[in-house]
Amino acid sequence: MKVFSKDRLLEELSQCPKVDGIDPLDVAERLAKMAEIGVTPEGGFTRYPYTREEQQVKEVFRGWMESIGLEVHEDTVGNLFGRFEGEDPSLPVVMTGSHLDTVPNGGAFDGALGCLSSLMAIEAMIKQGKKPKRTIELAVFVDEEGARFKNGIFGSRVMMGEVTPEDLEKFADANGVSLVDAMREQGYQPEQVALSKRRAEDIFAFLELHIEQGKILENEEKQIGIVNGIAGPSWRTFTFLGSTDHAGNTPMHMRKDTVVAASEFILGVEKLPRQFSETAVATVGKVNVFPNGTNVIAGKTEVVVDARDIVAESRDQMLEAITALAQEIAEKRELELKVEVGISIPPVIVPDCIQNAIAKAAETNGLGVRTLPSGAGHDAMILGKYVPSGMVFVPSLNGKSHSPEEWTSLPDCMNGMLVMKEVLFELASQ
Amino acid sequence: MKVFSKDRLLEELSQCPKVDGIDPLDVAERLAKMAEIGVTPEGGFTRYPYTREEQQVKEVFRGWMESIGLEVHEDTVGNLFGRFEGEDPSLPVVMTGSHLDTVPNGGAFDGALGCLSSLMAIEAMIKQGKKPKRTIELAVFVDEEGARFKNGIFGSRVMMGEVTPEDLEKFADANGVSLVDAMREQGYQPEQVALSKRRAEDIFAFLELHIEQGKILENEEKQIGIVNGIAGPSWRTFTFLGSTDHAGNTPMHMRKDTVVAASEFILGVEKLPRQFSETAVATVGKVNVFPNGTNVIAGKTEVVVDARDIVAESRDQMLEAITALAQEIAEKRELELKVEVGISIPPVIVPDCIQNAIAKAAETNGLGVRTLPSGAGHDAMILGKYVPSGMVFVPSLNGKSHSPEEWTSLPDCMNGMLVMKEVLFELASQ
Repeated sequence: MKVFSKDRLLEELSQCPKVDGIDPLDVAERLAKMAEIGVTPEGGFTRYPYTREEQQVKEVFRGWMESIGLEVHEDTVGNLFGRFEGEDPSLPVVMTGSHLDTVPNGGAFDGALGCLSSLMAIEAMIKQGKKPKRTIELAVFVDEEGARFKNGIFGSRVMMGEVTPEDLEKFADANGVSLVDAMREQGYQPEQVALSKRRAEDIFAFLELHIEQGKILENEEKQIGIVNGIAGPSWRTFTFLGSTDHAGNTPMHMRKDTVVAASEFILGVEKLPRQFSETAVATVGKVNVFPNGTNVIAGKTEVVVDARDIVAESRDQMLEAITALAQEIAEKRELELKVEVGISIPPVIVPDCIQNAIAKAAETNGLGVRTLPSGAGHDAMILGKYVPSGMVFVPSLNGKSHSPEEWTSLPDCMNGMLVMKEVLFELASQ
Repeated sequence: MKVFSKDRLLEELSQCPKVDGIDPLDVAERLAKMAEIGVTPEGGFTRYPYTREEQQVKEVFRGWMESIGLEVHEDTVGNLFGRFEGEDPSLPVVMTGSHLDTVPNGGAFDGALGCLSSLMAIEAMIKQGKKPKRTIELAVFVDEEGARFKNGIFGSRVMMGEVTPEDLEKFADANGVSLVDAMREQGYQPEQVALSKRRAEDIFAFLELHIEQGKILENEEKQIGIVNGIAGPSWRTFTFLGSTDHAGNTPMHMRKDTVVAASEFILGVEKLPRQFSETAVATVGKVNVFPNGTNVIAGKTEVVVDARDIVAESRDQMLEAITALAQEIAEKRELELKVEVGISIPPVIVPDCIQNAIAKAAETNGLGVRTLPSGAGHDAMILGKYVPSGMVFVPSLNGKSHSPEEWTSLPDCMNGMLVMKEVLFELASQ
C-alpha cells in the first residue's frame, strides 16, 4: 500500500505545469509539513477537532497566512480567517478555503489541499503584485468531517448562523467528552457561538478546491472537475419485519423471510436512479440482519438507503419511488415495514457564472475539464445555501479517500492551484 | 408471551384422547417435574451438557425408568439407557428416545417430550402386561443441542462409533472449560469413549418422537407428522469482493457494489429449491456487509447459504446450482467470488415400513396424519445412517422452538404417545 510522502510527490516534479507565483517545491514542502501532524501507524492522519493535533496544524497554517501578509483572526468556535484586502474593502468579500481536520486514519489531501490551494493562489497574486477589487478571505473551517462528535460541517454551519448554543449541548465524543467542554479546553467560547455568524450579504461568492474522492477524472484523464452541484445526502432506514423460523422446518412457501424481501428491495433500488436523473445515485451500504444465524430465517432486516442528487426535486421523487418499492415488496410478501426518515441535506446548485469561470481558467491553460456533481458534502454545501458557491475538483488516485492511500499527484495539485488563482482573481474583480 | 406451566397443560385435559396405560395427569406431572430444572427468568430452560442441571434432569428421568422396572445403565460419556426386556433378549433391540439437554433459554418440549413419550409408551405396555418379542431400549442421548461445546448430536455419534478420544480434545465451552474436563468433572471417562460404541447390527430399528418445530401440522390441523426423511444441512459461504467506494462520488455505472450482487444472489436462491424437489429448502439467514456504513459502497459481502433436502442427490444438485448462480452474478458484475464449503451432513431416508407403521397406528386411532420431512437434525439423523430409523412429529404451536414460547398441547402429547406405544410394540414384534 502506497501512502503519502514528500519524496513520492517530488517524483513527478518535472511534470508540473509552470504557474506564475506558485513553486511546486513550496507546495510539496507545505503538504509534507501538515502531514507531520497526527500521523498514524498506517501512514494516515488523525486530526480530530479541538485536539492538540488540530491546533498544531492550524498554528502551522496560521504562520503561513501571516507570513504572506494576511490579516488573521479566529472566531469563537475556532474557524480561522485570513484577509487579503482588495482595492475596495467595503465590497462583499470572495471567500475561499476548506478544512484541516481529518477522519480517523485519513489522507493528506482531503481538506488540507483545499486550504493550501486557496493560500497558494492568494500568495501568487501577492507575489505578482495583483490586487483585486474585492477582498479575498481565506477560511479554515473547524470540524468538517464530524469524526469526533458526529456533528460535521460544523464550522461553516456556525458561520452561516445555523448553530445555537443549545445545539452544542447535544454532542459528546466516544470518551464522553462533551463538545462544549472540548471547545472550552482549547480556549473557545461555545456560549458565544452567535458572534461567529457572518452575514450572507457580506460574502460575494465562495470557492473551494477539493480532491474528487471518486474515479471520474482519473478514468477520463481530465485534470479539472467543474462541480455543477453538491448532492446533499438523504437517508432512510427500511425495516422489514417477518417471522423468525427454523431454516430446516419451514417450507419455502410458508416463510416470511425478511432477507429475501430486503434483497428484492436492494436490487430494485439499484435500478431507480437512472429513471430520475443522470446525477442521481442511491446506495445501500448498511444492512443489518436479525438474528443473523445460518440456520434461522431472519425475522427482521434493516436496510439503510443513502439517496443523493444535485437537484432536490429529482432526489425527493427518487426517495418516494424507493419508499413505494419497499411498501410494494412488503405488501406482496406479507411483511410489516417500518420507514424511518434520517438526515436530509438540501442539494446545492453551482451558479453557471462560477462554472464558466472555472471552465475558462482551465481551458485557457490547456487543461481537460469534466463537469460533474459532488456526491459528498463539503463546507461549500453549507455556504451554497446562502451565497453563490463553486468547487474545483482535482483527481484522486483510484478514487481513494478517507484512507492513508489518498493521493493526488503534484502536477494535479498545481493544475488545481492554477485554476483557483485565476478564478479567485476573476471573482474578486467583479 | 405465554410460557410453560402445568396449569396451562391441564387446561386441555378434557380434550385428551383416552390411551390405555397412559394417564394424561402423569404426563403433565412429569413434564412439569422436568420443567423445574434449569429454569430461566424468561420462563425458558437452560440445561447444558455436563452440568448440574443436566445431571438433575437425568436423575429424575432415571428414577422413572427404574420405577417401572427398566434395567438402567449409563455409558462412558453419559448416554443413559433403560432396557425393557423382550421375549427373546438375543434379538437386536428396538431403540427409542431423545435428549434432555436444551439450548440456552429453550423450551420444555424439545427433547424432553421425546424421552417422556418413549417412557410412557413402554410403561403402558408394562401396565397392560404386553411383552413384545424384542427388547425395547430407551435411550437418553447426551448433548444433542451442542449449545455448550458447539459439538451437537454428540451422544448418538458416540454410540455409533463416530467419535474418537482425539476428537474430544478439540472442544471447549465459552468459559474455556474443555469438553474432556467437563466430562471428567461429572464422573465420565472421555478416554474410554470407544467402550460406548454399539454395533449397528444389535439395533433393529430406532424411533424418536419430537415436536415439529414448524407450522405444517398446525396449519393443516393434523395431529401426527410422519417424517419421511431427515434433511441434513449443508452450508456454503459466498463472499463477494468488489470495491469500497464513496456512496456520493461514484456514479451508478462505475460501482462494484457487493450488496447489490449479494441481493441478486439471495433473490435467485429463493427460487431454486422448487426446481429440484418438493422437500428442498435453501435459506440465507446470515449476511455480513463490510464496512457496513450508510455512505459507503460495500466492497465485501458474505452470504451464508443453508441448503437441505431429504435426498442427497437433489440437495447436492441444488447446491451446485446455487454456486453456479453466485459465479454467474460475480462474473456479470465483475466481482471476485470466494466459496467456502461448510458442514455437510448426509440426509436420512426413513424406510417405508416405519412410515407405514406410524400411518397405521395414527389412522386406526382416527388421528390426522401428514407426511413431511424433518428439516432439523436430530439423534435419529445419526442413528439413521446405520439402522432403520423413523420419527413421529407432534404439532408445535406457531412453529415456535428453542424459545420459552415452545408449546405442544396435552392432547397432542397424548396423541404422540399413543402412536409411539403402538409403533414401538409393532416394531418389537417383528
